[in-house]
Amino acid sequence: MSAMNKVTADDKLEANTVRQCVEHIASGALTSVELVQHSFDIIEKNEPEIRAWASLDKQQALAHANMLDDVRRRGQPLGALHGVPVGLKDIYDTSDFPTSYGSAIYANRRPAKDCRVVEKLKEAGALIMGKTVTTEFAFMHPSITCNPHNTLYSPGGSSSGSAASVAAGHVPLSLGSQTNGSVIRPASFCGVYGYKPSAGIISRQGVLETSATLDQVGVFGRDVADIALLADSLAGYDRNDSASYLAPKPAMLKGYLSEVPVSPTIAWIDMPYADRYSTDAAEGFEELIAAMGGSIERLSAPQSFAALLPCHKIIHEYELVRALKEPIDSHWDSISDTIKPTLLAAKNHTDEQYHEALEIRSAAIEWFAEFFNDYDAILTPSAVSEAPLMGSTGDPVCCTIWTLCGLPCLSMPLLEGANGLPIGVQLVGAARQDDRLLRTTRYVLGQLHEKD
Amino acid sequence: MSAMNKVTADDKLEANTVRQCVEHIASGALTSVELVQHSFDIIEKNEPEIRAWASLDKQQALAHANMLDDVRRRGQPLGALHGVPVGLKDIYDTSDFPTSYGSAIYANRRPAKDCRVVEKLKEAGALIMGKTVTTEFAFMHPSITCNPHNTLYSPGGSSSGSAASVAAGHVPLSLGSQTNGSVIRPASFCGVYGYKPSAGIISRQGVLETSATLDQVGVFGRDVADIALLADSLAGYDRNDSASYLAPKPAMLKGYLSEVPVSPTIAWIDMPYADRYSTDAAEGFEELIAAMGGSIERLSAPQSFAALLPCHKIIHEYELVRALKEPIDSHWDSISDTIKPTLLAAKNHTDEQYHEALEIRSAAIEWFAEFFNDYDAILTPSAVSEAPLMGSTGDPVCCTIWTLCGLPCLSMPLLEGANGLPIGVQLVGAARQDDRLLRTTRYVLGQLHEKD
Repeated sequence: MSAMNKVTADDKLEANTVRQCVEHIASGALTSVELVQHSFDIIEKNEPEIRAWASLDKQQALAHANMLDDVRRRGQPLGALHGVPVGLKDIYDTSDFPTSYGSAIYANRRPAKDCRVVEKLKEAGALIMGKTVTTEFAFMHPSITCNPHNTLYSPGGSSSGSAASVAAGHVPLSLGSQTNGSVIRPASFCGVYGYKPSAGIISRQGVLETSATLDQVGVFGRDVADIALLADSLAGYDRNDSASYLAPKPAMLKGYLSEVPVSPTIAWIDMPYADRYSTDAAEGFEELIAAMGGSIERLSAPQSFAALLPCHKIIHEYELVRALKEPIDSHWDSISDTIKPTLLAAKNHTDEQYHEALEIRSAAIEWFAEFFNDYDAILTPSAVSEAPLMGSTGDPVCCTIWTLCGLPCLSMPLLEGANGLPIGVQLVGAARQDDRLLRTTRYVLGQLHEKD
Repeated sequence: MSAMNKVTADDKLEANTVRQCVEHIASGALTSVELVQHSFDIIEKNEPEIRAWASLDKQQALAHANMLDDVRRRGQPLGALHGVPVGLKDIYDTSDFPTSYGSAIYANRRPAKDCRVVEKLKEAGALIMGKTVTTEFAFMHPSITCNPHNTLYSPGGSSSGSAASVAAGHVPLSLGSQTNGSVIRPASFCGVYGYKPSAGIISRQGVLETSATLDQVGVFGRDVADIALLADSLAGYDRNDSASYLAPKPAMLKGYLSEVPVSPTIAWIDMPYADRYSTDAAEGFEELIAAMGGSIERLSAPQSFAALLPCHKIIHEYELVRALKEPIDSHWDSISDTIKPTLLAAKNHTDEQYHEALEIRSAAIEWFAEFFNDYDAILTPSAVSEAPLMGSTGDPVCCTIWTLCGLPCLSMPLLEGANGLPIGVQLVGAARQDDRLLRTTRYVLGQLHEKD
């Protein structure tokens, strides 16, 4: 077990957190134009190998940065992400860039309007750097993006470009989405922090729908405070999103900056899929548990967990074939052979099976609500192993159950595997109590730091 | 000149600011149910004389308060206004209460959905206490509401009930709207703090439209920090509001809590309508300017100001008859005789006159943008006098020009007139720089406090 080094060279700008950059921009010590120019310098160096971006427009980004610098020069209000470039998975509608869902079918799709989170980003003073590569329809057909740690390996999916662009030092923050393991897994493979807030905190209006029940917005960054700040800026009720809920949202950055009132109780659960963990990952986690000393309570998984993987699969696939009705009906030949068998088989899930799966999910959500009365977080692998070789997006199983139940999940790049590639450590918390999960995250990082 | 006393008896709960109440609710020292019960105790005592409320539902309010207390008991996230009862002018769509626009024509109007600011309030953990009385269509026909300081006098309009409910101690906060002087003037007459943020900061989606160019949301409270906190909770981009703008919003409470970096430059302008000021008001302001010492620079109004009052009138009336097309066309007999002559005459404004007025407005907006490079705020009366007797809503002229240009305005209950009724002191700031206006407000209050 050893801390991962940053992929890119040490650099004054990159060493700064987003909060520091925003402070520097507010004081005039740094301009957004400098920050964006610096990003493009790195992109121009390594993007040909990494291929994190589906679309980029340097001139447009610099013009936007200049406009944001003008806002400061005129003494107008600055946002919490003022002048910071952000990458956006290519399933989020943008009025300034094509939105192509990782599919040639939609190569020329140009939405008229920004989606809700892009409005939120613009209102926070952030700058859309470009669109990051997604797997086809945010599903399992591997994308062209390579892992910035070693381009022979996969960055994971489906938010391939979002994770890789942060890992490569192109942008300090990016947005992805997770229906199964599409944020936490690429964060693990690429060695960055990944965070999928509780379902319903961030609006999905104007985002490709693949499963109304399971789709959730997530973020990537180089630092927990950065991703919490981004999540706070994106959070908010939206009546246009069926999952959005009308109640106060957790204050995520504030949660992370809080001290725990008492030592949190953290659970390690021996998951039914633990046989899929690679040897080096399994050993890494044993070392980690040992390093955490008495802070971690080891539990067996309840019998009911076994049903949750097929339950997720039925809901996902049942909703997916309906959500993708247009490309399936009208552009079947342009769909990859990787996903065709799944789409065909998915049509066999009956309404009854689907409704039964939704009931199993509801029961699991209740079970976790009870569980988190006694535990502050579950510590668990972000992925079963280091990144696989290019040609696969990797196994999402370490994320499935938490995503199914809409629980907040955070991946920290704390372990290194046999190939020298990162393995993420995942913390999972109580639904809609993301502030508590982030407070616990700070505690865990503090504990491990002390033991270093 | 003397500080106004609160209308209602001194009381532990009322002496608390909203921020203190929220802290007490968060710590468990106070419950929302207690706060709401206390509000109803006062309402039951004096509402028969004041008539601030168009609709109230005690059972519903207590049930909502109890739900919000449960949120705390379960350790779920709390909002910035958690458990605080808020009054809402009866032109804001609510799913829980009728929304009748102060007109018998719409007595049974029950919107299916909450308007945007009600969503914002609910997301901040606030509780809608009920709907406050508005004048007919938020225009000039007086409402039944009486001034809580003396029920022989008018509370002003059109946000009559919102101002009176705060002055009477029914609720610590309420929302009104201002198309001409409908927030600042009733705040002045009722002796409470009133604040109309810059146009475009708070969404008007789901609010009665009377003039798309001029309608603006405003708030009432007992304390500047409280109204700044409320305004922060309501602020945000909304693509459904043509005036909403997609850029970082000023941090209003933070602005108020900031110290001025250097002594601000405050202007007193001898307005073209100064001959309408009552003698006691005029004298009060001369004393106030003297008390402020060298802080205030006295200026003549530019010639161009004279054209702004008719310019506002044309835009307002031209848009009003179009916005009220339905009641005018279908329910003419149910419209008050007070507003009929204006509605009839308004039809004579030509398209050409209207477009010319919009151009004059644009030039004035540019003029003020320049002006506020040199001055931090304009200090000016909130109203020409104390409240008039019942039967009039009073003269809005002290608000017209600022509303026309979408400038932020704040009224402080600092003066007392010949009849022992309050007169407000208004501060006006640069558009979209509400944080700067609030910072200047703190300075002015500090200066006057020192001189006490």
